Amino acid sequence: MEKKEVAAGIDIGGTNTIFGLVDREGNILAEDRVITSHYDEIEVFVAALYEKIQLCVSKAGKGIELKGYGVGAPMGNINCGTIEYAAGLPWKGIVPIAAEFRRHTSLPVTVTNDANAAAVGEMIYGGARGMKNFVVITLGTGLGSGFVIDGKLVYGHAGFAGEIGHTAIRPGDSNRDCGCGRKGCLETYVSATGIKRSLLKIMADSIQPSELRKYSFEELDAKIIHDAALRGDPLALRAFEHTGRMLGFKLADVVAHTNPEAIFLFGGLALAKDLIFEPAKEYMEENLLSIYKGKVKLLASELSTQNAAVLGASSLVWSELEA
Amino acid sequence: MEKKEVAAGIDIGGTNTIFGLVDREGNILAEDRVITSHYDEIEVFVAALYEKIQLCVSKAGKGIELKGYGVGAPMGNINCGTIEYAAGLPWKGIVPIAAEFRRHTSLPVTVTNDANAAAVGEMIYGGARGMKNFVVITLGTGLGSGFVIDGKLVYGHAGFAGEIGHTAIRPGDSNRDCGCGRKGCLETYVSATGIKRSLLKIMADSIQPSELRKYSFEELDAKIIHDAALRGDPLALRAFEHTGRMLGFKLADVVAHTNPEAIFLFGGLALAKDLIFEPAKEYMEENLLSIYKGKVKLLASELSTQNAAVLGASSLVWSELEA
Repeated sequence: MEKKEVAAGIDIGGTNTIFGLVDREGNILAEDRVITSHYDEIEVFVAALYEKIQLCVSKAGKGIELKGYGVGAPMGNINCGTIEYAAGLPWKGIVPIAAEFRRHTSLPVTVTNDANAAAVGEMIYGGARGMKNFVVITLGTGLGSGFVIDGKLVYGHAGFAGEIGHTAIRPGDSNRDCGCGRKGCLETYVSATGIKRSLLKIMADSIQPSELRKYSFEELDAKIIHDAALRGDPLALRAFEHTGRMLGFKLADVVAHTNPEAIFLFGGLALAKDLIFEPAKEYMEENLLSIYKGKVKLLASELSTQNAAVLGASSLVWSELEA
Repeated sequence: MEKKEVAAGIDIGGTNTIFGLVDREGNILAEDRVITSHYDEIEVFVAALYEKIQLCVSKAGKGIELKGYGVGAPMGNINCGTIEYAAGLPWKGIVPIAAEFRRHTSLPVTVTNDANAAAVGEMIYGGARGMKNFVVITLGTGLGSGFVIDGKLVYGHAGFAGEIGHTAIRPGDSNRDCGCGRKGCLETYVSATGIKRSLLKIMADSIQPSELRKYSFEELDAKIIHDAALRGDPLALRAFEHTGRMLGFKLADVVAHTNPEAIFLFGGLALAKDLIFEPAKEYMEENLLSIYKGKVKLLASELSTQNAAVLGASSLVWSELEA
């Protein structure tokens, strides 16, 4: 019997690391996760992750043949197989994650930015099928971006293209600390954490009543704010409006750089639909040069929250094998 | 005798349109210009330009064979052969410039953004030889940008990539009108016109004496401010510092989008060397994510002011003939 070839697609996030065994058609045959934040040591993390993947492969039966590992991670660098200075992960400095995998396996291991992985997933299996020029913005704990130009992922000279989460909304004019050590980066406003921070600021300035006043900062999350907004809570609505506006400003910049056909929003905040898309679209259009107005689609990712990066990361393995 | 093949490289600017007859090696065998602002009608402009090019070809003698026309212009669109809503040119709306040329000739005519043309010139004949990922910023009456990724010019979905001159420094927070109809665009600060505007504002706020107080806005130009700065004029020095700072802010954004190896500055303001490069470099570095710090070169174009766009525009003809 011929075995079914699968790739392990791995999406490393600040909280969870999700992986899936994915065939060439993009079917996820099995998936599981490990808790990223439980592992202070990269060696121990990779060993635990590797073991869990092997367990998954055994469970999937003898008909499966694993061909390689594709890893999407914040600040993942395809040139060096490293994760470098990722503020939201437990490991500091330059982390040689591909080398750690190679202590366990001789199969190919490819590492890239998590948003790049999501962009590849969107291109092969999602709403960007057939598009040559588009951008994927991932809205999780932070904000990532992946650029596709002429049908190819943009890596840049050093492998770090697509870090618009760390562009400033108004240079020199924000007190909001970013995990990267600077102030006022886009992701401090537009991300699951960013909307909490904006909500607190709005709550401090306003005297309107709100169901959200009973939550601590730690208790709050984007889902709670989303649910409150759906019930018409005025502070939650203003937090979404503000978040969408900040996103829209910077999306206009994205358009002026690379003139994409579409921008896809992916991840938790994108699930809030019109609450985030309407202000983002309005302020993007307001800030666009006339030649671009009404011509750039702002779309929701067609892949479910957890799967785009896993699918994209797995597809890196097929590209690697064909290269 | 075998004839020497040349392409007409044409650089359309708000004031002058410069053209050259360029061979495949990048030698400009002849050049001349027409005054753009004398022509309100695109038909008359193209007829006059076409005639002057033919004159140049005849003068160059029988050994020359013209193979095509490459045009660089603000808002030049390679997909449609048009110039669209270029604020600094005499013709409004969508101008079918390639079609106008085709009324006179059956040779190939290629149109692109003037900064794209300069980027191609830099890549083939200038300081970007051998580079795969770089950006050229043209500082003239306005500010243009051309992006090269993986050795190829980025056109984007609709042919309009690289309009960072029309991104806002601080969205919603500037009174400075832009020719594009919006406010606070980068080119209203960073361009030959932008530095004049900043100087006037500094002059209004300051009580320091300055040799520049005797000039009207119309009399002032970037060269006068540059010369005054070299003599230590305090207001001229502050105008350069301010201009460089605004540029540096946005260059940090450029890096976070596409992670280039180098950014080249080209055009009049770039001739001010350290006066513009030092503040630009300082504020770019200050606004860079740590992974990029100290790793992106900020360089002066190696091509003389008038020639990069002419060379780049001419090279479009060779690419067109080989496609």
